[in-house]
Amino acid sequence: MSNQIPRTDVSSASLPLVVGIDLGGTNIKFGLLDDEGRTLAALNIRTESDRGPREAMGRVTEALRLMAAELGVDFGQISCVGLATPGPMDIPAGKLLEPPNLPDSWDHFPIRDCLAEMIGKPVIYENDANAAAFGEYWVGSGRDYASIVLLTLGTGVGAGIIIDDIPLDGQHSHGGECGHLLLDPAPDARMCGCGRRGHLEAYCSATALVKRAHEELQRGRTSKISETGVADKGFTAKCIAEAAAAGDILAHELIAELATHLGHGMVTIAHTVDPAAIILGGAMNFGGPSTELGSQFLRMVSKTFRELALPFLAEHTQIEFAKLGGDAGYIGAAGVARNRSKI
Amino acid sequence: MSNQIPRTDVSSASLPLVVGIDLGGTNIKFGLLDDEGRTLAALNIRTESDRGPREAMGRVTEALRLMAAELGVDFGQISCVGLATPGPMDIPAGKLLEPPNLPDSWDHFPIRDCLAEMIGKPVIYENDANAAAFGEYWVGSGRDYASIVLLTLGTGVGAGIIIDDIPLDGQHSHGGECGHLLLDPAPDARMCGCGRRGHLEAYCSATALVKRAHEELQRGRTSKISETGVADKGFTAKCIAEAAAAGDILAHELIAELATHLGHGMVTIAHTVDPAAIILGGAMNFGGPSTELGSQFLRMVSKTFRELALPFLAEHTQIEFAKLGGDAGYIGAAGVARNRSKI
Repeated sequence: MSNQIPRTDVSSASLPLVVGIDLGGTNIKFGLLDDEGRTLAALNIRTESDRGPREAMGRVTEALRLMAAELGVDFGQISCVGLATPGPMDIPAGKLLEPPNLPDSWDHFPIRDCLAEMIGKPVIYENDANAAAFGEYWVGSGRDYASIVLLTLGTGVGAGIIIDDIPLDGQHSHGGECGHLLLDPAPDARMCGCGRRGHLEAYCSATALVKRAHEELQRGRTSKISETGVADKGFTAKCIAEAAAAGDILAHELIAELATHLGHGMVTIAHTVDPAAIILGGAMNFGGPSTELGSQFLRMVSKTFRELALPFLAEHTQIEFAKLGGDAGYIGAAGVARNRSKI
Repeated sequence: MSNQIPRTDVSSASLPLVVGIDLGGTNIKFGLLDDEGRTLAALNIRTESDRGPREAMGRVTEALRLMAAELGVDFGQISCVGLATPGPMDIPAGKLLEPPNLPDSWDHFPIRDCLAEMIGKPVIYENDANAAAFGEYWVGSGRDYASIVLLTLGTGVGAGIIIDDIPLDGQHSHGGECGHLLLDPAPDARMCGCGRRGHLEAYCSATALVKRAHEELQRGRTSKISETGVADKGFTAKCIAEAAAAGDILAHELIAELATHLGHGMVTIAHTVDPAAIILGGAMNFGGPSTELGSQFLRMVSKTFRELALPFLAEHTQIEFAKLGGDAGYIGAAGVARNRSKI
């Protein structure tokens, strides 16, 4: 439990407590939170997905019992558990479908009910991107808004929609898959990670940014980007951000291009969902609000959005960076569970 | 009251009754409905918008009292009134903002509270496109689904989103403005009725279809379309539909092109909202499900959608024609009011 991070003193916690779990292909993050969304302790363990879902849920349950014991928390003070996993999934049935980043042994596994039985608490199941959005909505950048859309820019583009305390799960557990909105319907549009063309993710993910850099370098453009990166692995989106921050012209152009595409996608999101705020999360935040490049990125995105959105939305829709980083998922999973248990 | 249409016998009506009003730039449609969404009587009067909103609400109130008296309905049996108007509007405040199709005297007018005072009943205010969607959801093509998106193809493209009995009004009363989703972000994309470029409406409205026909005729294409239409006014979308039904090749190509664009927009809607069904309404339904052209249009739209949507959605999202025609708005306004009054 070396990476356990106590954050809020247990004696000042608001009861009841709630657990949030964010299961990914590589890691499982989970935490014990109080009723106001403060993390009492959080932990990050390897998924070790080859050992199957039952074993993973067993390790999480065991670690949570230890965590509670170490904090001096009675397990009875925990009202419920929120579990977030990647899709595709069947949220009402509490099952994974055939998630591409997990082995076959996870396919169609009734993970919600398995965990509920092991842990002896009600488990609320949610999509991981929707959970992250709920985290930002509950205690992050979205806490002052009645509705938000979170766009998570990383290897792919994740998205979650929260309206009046409720995640938009969708009829087929595909709500808020805005990373796959059709930005360019042309038959030769850029290829998305999902195998279809023209989606937002094909233009605004870290993967897309790196691809675009390779294309421009192959066309003979010169840039510091090509001098960066780890030997065999080549450069990453982070290298491009660093080059841009250091004044590299190509790197800057590519980020501006991405910002324009993102602004276009956000117009469609605002014209469909009309949230109070669109929040930008994920590792690819170009340094975030505290850096010059991050602020510049947000200004570029906002400029495109405000030029193209319907006038009232151009004026009123808020655009901000996310605050919770990689913790948003387990925090939001806990938040969704807490809300459902109170209905 | 010559165009009053009694439809359901008052003696078999489920109580309480509810009124729905659909206010447009030219006409006001309203009806008295029972608790199961059956219309007891409906009426269509001119808006005469130059006389201002207060006068219009007065005429509606008067006509409703007469309607109730003629039906032998005690006004006390009516629980509430739903009022739908075009946007932009402020739904929580019960006000129109600056609707383009109404004179200045309507701007920022507190229409909800004005009507409530005149009629002596609680008035629930809603966007007209969302109300139409609610109508289809309540008693139309959407009645078997837990969530729908209605796309109304007419002079423009209207849209409304209903999820679990609730219209997605949006944070700024712009929820479900899917007619303005960005189908093509290119700077030279087609011009939308709203003055911005690349929106779904710029490709899928009757206006867009007629424009495309003019373009092709000017390029020298021959077609029966040019022989149709009323003298000075030229041809309409209906003329193009008739030409297509009669085997005209250009007309058919243009409708196929529109269907492809519509399918693209529907992919983005499904990937964002994930409704159980997307329902196509409006005057431009190419004859509807009972005609060869209408069925063909629905097949073309569905084909594009199923080729491009994420696999689970391609398989499960339903696509259907609307059923209620121009009555959807007042029926849905009544339905929204009925639901809110029961909360």
